[in-house]
Amino acid sequence: MRLATLRDGTPDGALLVVGSGGDRAAPAAAVATTLQQAMENWAAVEPALRAIAAQVEAGTAPGLFALAEGTPLAAPLTRAWQWLDGSAYLQHGERMQQAFNLPPIETDRPLMYQGLSDRFYGPADDIPFPAEEDGVDFEGELGVIVDAVPMGTSAEEALAHIRLIVQINDWSLRTIAPVEMKTGFGWVQAKPACSMAPFAATPDELGNAWRDGRVHGRMRVELNGERFGDVESGEEMAFGFHELVAHAARTRDLVAGTIIGSGTISSRHYAEMGSTCISERRAIDIVAGREPTPFLRFGDEVAMEARVGGEALFGAIRQKVVKG
Amino acid sequence: MRLATLRDGTPDGALLVVGSGGDRAAPAAAVATTLQQAMENWAAVEPALRAIAAQVEAGTAPGLFALAEGTPLAAPLTRAWQWLDGSAYLQHGERMQQAFNLPPIETDRPLMYQGLSDRFYGPADDIPFPAEEDGVDFEGELGVIVDAVPMGTSAEEALAHIRLIVQINDWSLRTIAPVEMKTGFGWVQAKPACSMAPFAATPDELGNAWRDGRVHGRMRVELNGERFGDVESGEEMAFGFHELVAHAARTRDLVAGTIIGSGTISSRHYAEMGSTCISERRAIDIVAGREPTPFLRFGDEVAMEARVGGEALFGAIRQKVVKG
Repeated sequence: MRLATLRDGTPDGALLVVGSGGDRAAPAAAVATTLQQAMENWAAVEPALRAIAAQVEAGTAPGLFALAEGTPLAAPLTRAWQWLDGSAYLQHGERMQQAFNLPPIETDRPLMYQGLSDRFYGPADDIPFPAEEDGVDFEGELGVIVDAVPMGTSAEEALAHIRLIVQINDWSLRTIAPVEMKTGFGWVQAKPACSMAPFAATPDELGNAWRDGRVHGRMRVELNGERFGDVESGEEMAFGFHELVAHAARTRDLVAGTIIGSGTISSRHYAEMGSTCISERRAIDIVAGREPTPFLRFGDEVAMEARVGGEALFGAIRQKVVKG
Repeated sequence: MRLATLRDGTPDGALLVVGSGGDRAAPAAAVATTLQQAMENWAAVEPALRAIAAQVEAGTAPGLFALAEGTPLAAPLTRAWQWLDGSAYLQHGERMQQAFNLPPIETDRPLMYQGLSDRFYGPADDIPFPAEEDGVDFEGELGVIVDAVPMGTSAEEALAHIRLIVQINDWSLRTIAPVEMKTGFGWVQAKPACSMAPFAATPDELGNAWRDGRVHGRMRVELNGERFGDVESGEEMAFGFHELVAHAARTRDLVAGTIIGSGTISSRHYAEMGSTCISERRAIDIVAGREPTPFLRFGDEVAMEARVGGEALFGAIRQKVVKG
């Protein structure tokens, strides 16, 4: 089952159930008004949402409508009470350390930071930044949305709390990032709001591509219409999402609707697959003796589509960077 | 004017306007149901809230009732879309570096991290932690709540966005903190939910004690009924709250109801004033050749009261640490 959120003038939008082709949807209001509301009552509402999904397939769902280019879809969660982003692709960390001339991070624990969660941009929103000089960059990621997870939940137990999978662009400001990182306090200015692709999918929707708490698919990124990366997302994820959830829940209850991110998808096969962020590409450029790929300019367009079994299950992010 | 939030079974509680003695209150429901709602419409609702405050003083407010020991007050904001905590008392940073044997943080920018904001404990809640071995500690802080602050707002402009001042206990797990800090990603496990004192005060309520974006008062902390610290909060704050707000808004719009914290209040006059967290006291112990003060044990009780002109304007935090 896939869910989406329609902009309706309210802060949280209106929950939709999306058809299997991604071209039709029906309101879920009879079951849950918003995705946050659904997350808070997932076990109770899931069967009724699946009943609507069956009606969408049969063409009998009340309020069924076509999803077209101009349908104003928001991020599935327009805002969340908590967003914790991991960095589970070690290859990315190694390239970033190379790019920023940083010492290696010596830890056997998952890397994770608390991110801004009061807004997530929708898939077609223009993204405002104050200055190109801040080093505007994208990061292609996947994430999971959990229901309420009690403190101390194990990784094994955490799997059952993963209710939805989403696709995220974690916008990053690279000139500021290393300055903030050196303080040990993590990122504030370097990590403004993220974007989300339009569809959130239940794990079963991924079939065998969801295993070991990982999404075995590919993240395709295009910059101004040209392929930037098409990177496999399962094999090189050092910690599964269930392990990231357990890490996050070690000393806190996770509120229903918490989003946990994978960090930038990255592969050691970057020569064939490319990258899902510019910063990593720059490190590769430098090692290869090439001029580093520039960060984004106002007007640049970024597209991202995670594909599972060849299908763009989460829909596409297509956004323009603009002066804020 | 002072505001509080009564537990009423809803996640955000019910907004109250508090009388000048802190011993009476009246519901604000006719104006704003919750504090978050008030923050989103502050300019519009403030005059009506002040009208209720005048009625509370006159004893004529509808629904006026006595605030007693058992009145179930929550944190003024039971949850927030954003909590950013600074570390504006340089003396604290220096002592912490000494305690953890860390290199000095070389920066002329305010230190700040994005914290967990999906819940703030109320002033009398028991606080659950998984293990004493994590090094359970308190941090006595002040914070401000802002209305919507546009990206790029200057420090001077930020002053007018500071609508309320609150008192916070930033619970911290000291065994985990340095491990997370070394990754550069900031704290997740080391910073579980914070607590808030019951009353949020408008800046004018502080009179001349609110100046230069600082609260010129004292933070008194007691551990198991004994004075732990009574530390002046204005003079040694290296950045005013307006500067912290501007720092936070450099690359993002701040959502209405964002809370910005001062960091642990600390003074170089620690020999007389003491400390507002154990970790700092331990560093002082070590330098003095004393046995380091132990971190908290389950059953320990922590009380905090920030005083402005001798008055406990924010009410008191009185909490017990328990096994979660």
